[in-house]
Amino acid sequence: DPKLKVFTCNANPQLAKEIADHIGLPLGNAEVVRFSDGEIQVKLNESVRGADVFIIQSTSAPVNQNLMELLIMVDALKRASAKSINVVMPYYGYARQDRKARARDPITAKLVANLLETAGVHRVIAMDLHATQIQGFFDIPVDHLLGIPILSAYFQEKALEDVVVVSPDHGGVTRARKLAERLESPLAIIDKRRPEPNVAEVMNIIGNIEGKTAILIDDMIDTAGTISLAANALIESGAKKVYACCTHPVLSGPAIDRISNSSIEELVVTNTIALSGDRLIPKIKVLSVAPIIGEAIVRIHEELSVSKLFD
Amino acid sequence: DPKLKVFTCNANPQLAKEIADHIGLPLGNAEVVRFSDGEIQVKLNESVRGADVFIIQSTSAPVNQNLMELLIMVDALKRASAKSINVVMPYYGYARQDRKARARDPITAKLVANLLETAGVHRVIAMDLHATQIQGFFDIPVDHLLGIPILSAYFQEKALEDVVVVSPDHGGVTRARKLAERLESPLAIIDKRRPEPNVAEVMNIIGNIEGKTAILIDDMIDTAGTISLAANALIESGAKKVYACCTHPVLSGPAIDRISNSSIEELVVTNTIALSGDRLIPKIKVLSVAPIIGEAIVRIHEELSVSKLFD
Ligand SMILES: Nc1ncnc2c1ncn2[C@@H]1O[C@H](COP(=O)(O)O)[C@@H](O)[C@H]1O
Ligand SMILES: Nc1ncnc2c1ncn2[C@@H]1O[C@H](COP(=O)(O)O)[C@@H](O)[C@H]1O
Repeated sequence: DPKLKVFTCNANPQLAKEIADHIGLPLGNAEVVRFSDGEIQVKLNESVRGADVFIIQSTSAPVNQNLMELLIMVDALKRASAKSINVVMPYYGYARQDRKARARDPITAKLVANLLETAGVHRVIAMDLHATQIQGFFDIPVDHLLGIPILSAYFQEKALEDVVVVSPDHGGVTRARKLAERLESPLAIIDKRRPEPNVAEVMNIIGNIEGKTAILIDDMIDTAGTISLAANALIESGAKKVYACCTHPVLSGPAIDRISNSSIEELVVTNTIALSGDRLIPKIKVLSVAPIIGEAIVRIHEELSVSKLFD
Repeated sequence: DPKLKVFTCNANPQLAKEIADHIGLPLGNAEVVRFSDGEIQVKLNESVRGADVFIIQSTSAPVNQNLMELLIMVDALKRASAKSINVVMPYYGYARQDRKARARDPITAKLVANLLETAGVHRVIAMDLHATQIQGFFDIPVDHLLGIPILSAYFQEKALEDVVVVSPDHGGVTRARKLAERLESPLAIIDKRRPEPNVAEVMNIIGNIEGKTAILIDDMIDTAGTISLAANALIESGAKKVYACCTHPVLSGPAIDRISNSSIEELVVTNTIALSGDRLIPKIKVLSVAPIIGEAIVRIHEELSVSKLFD
């Protein structure tokens, strides 16, 4: 049976280790380091000839560096005769530029897809893509995993009473509805409106949140502006407590301060993006996606092996 | 006649301005900025429809960022219906990984070529590629400009007496010979040998340098280890003075200290890579490649316009 190998670059080696442990494999022996001038050097210290290789690499910040590490790793694996190159991107960066919002905009989510295919990727495994359309930007298979089962399991275990799931904007209603269904809770939506130009936005809450425990959900939290304003608006409108959750804790710029100072009781995230140092405040609870990704890798590797029978 | 437009990203806006001035055009109106999480945003603030567009961007450090700026700019120009997208890379980063030096090495110089073509580049203008083979990594035209005319003109004007041009290693002899021809000077070569493993290298000088003014030449100077050792060896072996020159002042890590502390009288470089702040020491003389690149752009644009007659 063809070999299965799991490698990591530098975005999230801790998650890669957990995934490899879950599968019951050691991580592949490779180094991804820098020359003096900052150019990336990939050293594959073991053979990958004929192997189904999975590379774990989120394109989180520093995004350009993490993307180039991934592309160079793929190039090395391709030239070292890996049988298949499967890229696991728990967080897919550059996803928010997914359409021409203005004239002459680039579409970076598509550019990244093209760069990965050109480098030699055979398959992508991603989690909670910012837009599901991004699957269509690829001409190779994309497995799309969801964070909601992990987030909902955590809240179910907490056994909160009188819960309402809240979408922080229109765009997130489908996602919020999925969580509400799993928690058997009602749904509310925050409807931001700017009454006149240059007047502060008003947060209108659609649905009943009075006296309830609200759970805000989004795919990613970046500068945390929306989510912390939403949490404060919910408390002001009579919610008892506010939790927030997301799959991808981008948490850039003022995010940590905003979350600290907000009415958010707890922010529940996953480890698709590594948090460490002063970004790991007690208010943030991190759940691991390693079991979900580990199972996906095992299943895909079985598929690849079965399909080999028909080659 | 089709419009000519020159844009720049952030690697070397000063050089881009000089090139545009040389051509007699304003720089195209575009912004290359960052979102809070570090993702690059390109804003084209003018139409490029039907234009022959030239983008000035060296992929010098920070190399991954500069390369991604370039790729995203190309994507934006392509989607904004530029007629042709011509990329001017005065310094082509990742060029030293141009072959499998060890088993399982990536070939980053080829990867970068593929990424540029995939993004939508029609033509590349580069200077002193680390290996001329890199032209063959592209399936699009590559114009290859040389720094030697600029460097040799500077030394000719200096009217140094009793000059010998020195190649710091075997690999650079062809380049050194070109400079020696232009200066009508003899040639010497430094032959580094390690007599036994774990014994310091010995610098053997092939050719007569006694009492002469030596000019060391390389395509790029990175950590400046080789060049400063070579200069010291030349002085110890009786050279009167040592100048050094290169097209690309990469100058990473200990380079500035090493040059300061070496016997190098003056290091002559070009502005393919921007030097600023504490990297711009008095010992370094910077010559501009703007006239050479400006002329190349005008010539290529004329070619593109002529070929249009036959479309
Ligand atoms: N990295 C980023 N950080 C902040 N905003 C971004 C980023 N990338 C794209 N955007 C903007 O976010 C908008 C898309 O967000 P959304 O409507 O939530 O899909 C686009 O109009 C972009 O201008
Ligand atoms: N950015 C870099 N900095 C230092 N060394 C490099 C870099 N890129 C490649 N190399 C090494 O330089 C060697 C090629 O240099 P050369 O023989 O001068 O072409 C290769 O064996 C690489 O391992």
